[in-house]
Amino acid sequence: MASNKRIVLIGAGNVATHLGIGLQAAGYEVKQVYSRTEVSASELANRLSVGYVTSLEEVCTDADVYIVAVKDAVLTELIPMVVKGREDALFVHTAGSMPMEVWKEHAVHHGVLYPMQTFSKAREVDFASVSFFVEANGTAELAVLKEMAEALSPKVYEASSKQRMYLHMAAVFACNFTNHMYALSAYLLEKNGLPFDAMLPLIEETARKVHGLAPREAQTGPAVRRDENVMGKHASMLADEPRLQELYRMISQSIQEK
Amino acid sequence: MASNKRIVLIGAGNVATHLGIGLQAAGYEVKQVYSRTEVSASELANRLSVGYVTSLEEVCTDADVYIVAVKDAVLTELIPMVVKGREDALFVHTAGSMPMEVWKEHAVHHGVLYPMQTFSKAREVDFASVSFFVEANGTAELAVLKEMAEALSPKVYEASSKQRMYLHMAAVFACNFTNHMYALSAYLLEKNGLPFDAMLPLIEETARKVHGLAPREAQTGPAVRRDENVMGKHASMLADEPRLQELYRMISQSIQEK
Repeated sequence: MASNKRIVLIGAGNVATHLGIGLQAAGYEVKQVYSRTEVSASELANRLSVGYVTSLEEVCTDADVYIVAVKDAVLTELIPMVVKGREDALFVHTAGSMPMEVWKEHAVHHGVLYPMQTFSKAREVDFASVSFFVEANGTAELAVLKEMAEALSPKVYEASSKQRMYLHMAAVFACNFTNHMYALSAYLLEKNGLPFDAMLPLIEETARKVHGLAPREAQTGPAVRRDENVMGKHASMLADEPRLQELYRMISQSIQEK
Repeated sequence: MASNKRIVLIGAGNVATHLGIGLQAAGYEVKQVYSRTEVSASELANRLSVGYVTSLEEVCTDADVYIVAVKDAVLTELIPMVVKGREDALFVHTAGSMPMEVWKEHAVHHGVLYPMQTFSKAREVDFASVSFFVEANGTAELAVLKEMAEALSPKVYEASSKQRMYLHMAAVFACNFTNHMYALSAYLLEKNGLPFDAMLPLIEETARKVHGLAPREAQTGPAVRRDENVMGKHASMLADEPRLQELYRMISQSIQEK
């Protein structure tokens, strides 16, 4: 799956880190890392054994693909500066919720490479089980992005900017909000001297269950069986945590509505 | 792991169903099933090839252990009727949030056998990965319950009624509320013609991640990185779903507070 495409990573956060490692392992040449934060830039550059820069003017001009993986708010700001002087290259961002057209005014060749996964620097990523969604402004551009994504994962789909926005929002519920439910659970256990580890088999089974059953059919617990007794007890146990109590009430209500 | 203990199941819901199947497979004699709902009683009785009754008066009087797995609200109502005429037996309930003392006035031998897991009738349960929490009013009673739980799982812990209440509430967050996040994700995808299956690798990884990282450290997404841009976009995408929009806002806020 080697490719002669030379890549520059703009950004050195979780997504850039894992894409960089994955693409290098798949035979791509990562040429350089840019981050305005020197610590991040050098950390990722060291992991990849490549050079880094902290100013956009110093970013090399002879790469084939520039992958911009930065916060959405920074992305639109960076785009004109990243493209300038590098107009022949292919430019992509990795953001679920940014439309492809943010590139339109600036770059001739552009697209999106969105890996729908939760990345933490401290944790290895098995790209083979990551769904990638790609979009590009032309067939040649799309082919480059597909080849790149397919070098990392067998699960590569095309998705329009609109579809990707909904995918991203759905992922916030299925991943970010889910993880917060784990965090609240851990907090309540810790507060009462109980180990979070006891919860892991339940967390595993809850995740596995929706492979076979639709989540709505898999729903269990006091809210769905309208067990006011238990819900009332939990409300009083959360009396000293008014915000958590309100969250408990709202999620229970939402379960009963769906 | 065979035992000569004869068991009667009071209740034929998800928990009774899986405990019955598991205990029978572990060599226990399940004598009878009671449920006031004939369809449920006969369905479980058929799966176990035993008899069933729909009135408490007909429940046999010569079992060693009566396992009462019913809704909390029904439990306290049933207790005097279940115990009457069967005073020598051991009585247990399976509810996370009911204290052991609900038995105190009625049964000489009593306890709690709480399997912390999400049970759906349509899905097999691998008891080997279920944490069981037991409590009993004496050493002999505790020994019987421990033996029973250990015949099903290697993860058997003692927990007081108070600890169990907190375990149960924490489980509501880690399992029931988590599953609802999956359900909301599925709903949003479906509404936009996208397949929920694409979300499964992300769900898996989100669950696996907290085996190695504390949930708080594993948190990713727009809320924790305070990406107002993305959160604002999601709020406007949920404009036609005011309750969902409010839930999105509250969970995001809770992520930022913790």
